[in-house]
Amino acid sequence: MSQFDIDSPENVARRKHGLEVLSRIDGEAGEAVIESLADISPALGHHVAAFSFGDIYDRPGLDPRSRQLVTLGMLTALGGCEPQLKVHIGAALNVGISRDEVVEALLHAAVYVGFPRALNATFVAREVFAERDAAV
Amino acid sequence: MSQFDIDSPENVARRKHGLEVLSRIDGEAGEAVIESLADISPALGHHVAAFSFGDIYDRPGLDPRSRQLVTLGMLTALGGCEPQLKVHIGAALNVGISRDEVVEALLHAAVYVGFPRALNATFVAREVFAERDAAV
Amino acid sequence: MSQFDIDSPENVARRKHGLEVLSRIDGEAGEAVIESLADISPALGHHVAAFSFGDIYDRPGLDPRSRQLVTLGMLTALGGCEPQLKVHIGAALNVGISRDEVVEALLHAAVYVGFPRALNATFVAREVFAERDAAV
Amino acid sequence: MSQFDIDSPENVARRKHGLEVLSRIDGEAGEAVIESLADISPALGHHVAAFSFGDIYDRPGLDPRSRQLVTLGMLTALGGCEPQLKVHIGAALNVGISRDEVVEALLHAAVYVGFPRALNATFVAREVFAERDAAV
Amino acid sequence: MSQFDIDSPENVARRKHGLEVLSRIDGEAGEAVIESLADISPALGHHVAAFSFGDIYDRPGLDPRSRQLVTLGMLTALGGCEPQLKVHIGAALNVGISRDEVVEALLHAAVYVGFPRALNATFVAREVFAERDAAV
Amino acid sequence: MSQFDIDSPENVARRKHGLEVLSRIDGEAGEAVIESLADISPALGHHVAAFSFGDIYDRPGLDPRSRQLVTLGMLTALGGCEPQLKVHIGAALNVGISRDEVVEALLHAAVYVGFPRALNATFVAREVFAERDAAV
Repeated sequence: MSQFDIDSPENVARRKHGLEVLSRIDGEAGEAVIESLADISPALGHHVAAFSFGDIYDRPGLDPRSRQLVTLGMLTALGGCEPQLKVHIGAALNVGISRDEVVEALLHAAVYVGFPRALNATFVAREVFAERDAAV
Repeated sequence: MSQFDIDSPENVARRKHGLEVLSRIDGEAGEAVIESLADISPALGHHVAAFSFGDIYDRPGLDPRSRQLVTLGMLTALGGCEPQLKVHIGAALNVGISRDEVVEALLHAAVYVGFPRALNATFVAREVFAERDAAV
Repeated sequence: MSQFDIDSPENVARRKHGLEVLSRIDGEAGEAVIESLADISPALGHHVAAFSFGDIYDRPGLDPRSRQLVTLGMLTALGGCEPQLKVHIGAALNVGISRDEVVEALLHAAVYVGFPRALNATFVAREVFAERDAAV
Repeated sequence: MSQFDIDSPENVARRKHGLEVLSRIDGEAGEAVIESLADISPALGHHVAAFSFGDIYDRPGLDPRSRQLVTLGMLTALGGCEPQLKVHIGAALNVGISRDEVVEALLHAAVYVGFPRALNATFVAREVFAERDAAV
Repeated sequence: MSQFDIDSPENVARRKHGLEVLSRIDGEAGEAVIESLADISPALGHHVAAFSFGDIYDRPGLDPRSRQLVTLGMLTALGGCEPQLKVHIGAALNVGISRDEVVEALLHAAVYVGFPRALNATFVAREVFAERDAAV
Repeated sequence: MSQFDIDSPENVARRKHGLEVLSRIDGEAGEAVIESLADISPALGHHVAAFSFGDIYDRPGLDPRSRQLVTLGMLTALGGCEPQLKVHIGAALNVGISRDEVVEALLHAAVYVGFPRALNATFVAREVFAERDAAV
């Protein structure tokens, strides 16, 4: 059953790698998500890090900018994922997507998922930009 | 009421521009969608061309590759949009996204929208690739 | 446990009323749905009739035309409900909504749920119209 | 590139018309949405006005009451669009749909999209009604 | 029209039975939902009780534990149903599903609906657990 | 980069374990999904096996019956996942959920996700049952 022991050497190594990727891309916002899971579902935190970021996000087949554009599209389309959208709009900026490009991507979204979801995502973008400006 | 007359000079011009963008990006698959609307909803066909492609898609603020990545993410997340996904996976190839990158983007999608939607989108990609191979 | 006995006198009466409403609105297409459930889930068929049509659809607080407009909006937004959309576009015509109004409602939908779902619903409308023309 | 210049005479005219429609239907709540976009995405604000309201909402093929019924159905089905639902429940009242009809439409929604989304929309309606009562 | 008179003897009896089921499973949180509907949509409150709990939830064909597992899956997948998820995570605990099983079910959800929805549901679970601990 | 080399010893071992779990639960239908990915996205096939089944499904914290009930709820709610629903209704039967319980779970779903999605899932169940009867 060691496969499910998230503190086995193999899983610690997978998680460590994932956390490095997560930290590189999402910065403190990403780490905060993992930490916030420590008391309720450490296994979910482990798989966010080890699988989502370590196994998938860091794969060489698609550059980080492209991954974030796909991700922005998905989170906008899903709806009800404002906390994740906030983290990933931040991540988009971190990997070199400009604020104007984020805003343009969310305008583009209106065509495919309708104006309500595009509006909600744009208001999240405004919040992220304002927090960054305040943090300077 | 000329604003709603899709055959007014202004609307014909807007649609003509949109059809050029659509044709450049989606090729025959895109034109076929517009044509298929001629009998049932020419106004919907007009707005797909004039608004979606002419007003939005062709805006300079985001390059075509980036727009298609966002679009792939949205269509995969929505589910039940296999016909549109087929057109837009073709469009992704047309704007220079490689087959491997499409496949990788859909693997990436599994993290955010779950494996069922990622699987369905990947099977659409296989269909598009096979049709292109058969057309050579 | 008689409440769950769909063949109790009370439930037969509730179902009979619901089937009358269903038949009046959806015509044969609606009855076919209930019949198609007879072998697999007669309880689901009972509740479609007794609850959905008998208890809710026939309530006096909203006219049938208005109910169908709300329903078209919901089924278009949900996605993946083409069979139900087909039945309810037929129902819309049955309660006096014109073909042009159906098509216009689905163009209107593009604003709120995006063009892909609006397109899919419009193609279902074309199918319904064609079947009606063929049946004349 | 004048097509994308939202301050070109043509686009100013399209937007002006759309804002009049928006103002007539949604009142101050609608204008507030456009204004709230001025700093972050004026192009999105432009297209909400020019396309959604000017090009689509005001088309003669469907009366405002019918458009709002379709819209209530869509926003209830989408989920996670409470801010938009709030604006459009207000718009429904503005175009002559009664409070009882709004509440009835949302009960009707339970059949098609389930009770959770119907409940959430009903609580938004209560909020809108309360604000109108307080504003008297 | 007595079928729609929610105060007819038959409907009062159906509702009374439903409220007993609701109270047994959801406890005070469920009753609070019905009460909160009294002013805005008593008919919706009636059908939540009479149909959802009385007609469906209490059917003998599936044990309460199984019903809550299906329900957790649905509410997690829908997104935007945090208030309902809160009630039903409480209900899950009430019918004998352990906290660890709830958390595990929501980790399992990540595979099928993606990590963002799994994360949002897990944070609702933490809130429910904390309120129960505080209430002791 | 060995982490992304799905043919590294560690990944082969993880996948082998996952395939055993998949085979035990989904039988041939599950294996067929993985095989069908071999030409288009072997990495997606790897992660379905290694992550979804090996890492998550086989975890001891929730029994297989419970996992399948949560899964049925999610796939019914998502919509547009009929192929996956087909595999997982088969899996539900394989882990000891009776046909009547599957049908009851899908009736229960009508309350939370509406009748259209419940109907679509029930028709998938009928197809699965018919194929099993034909295979005897």
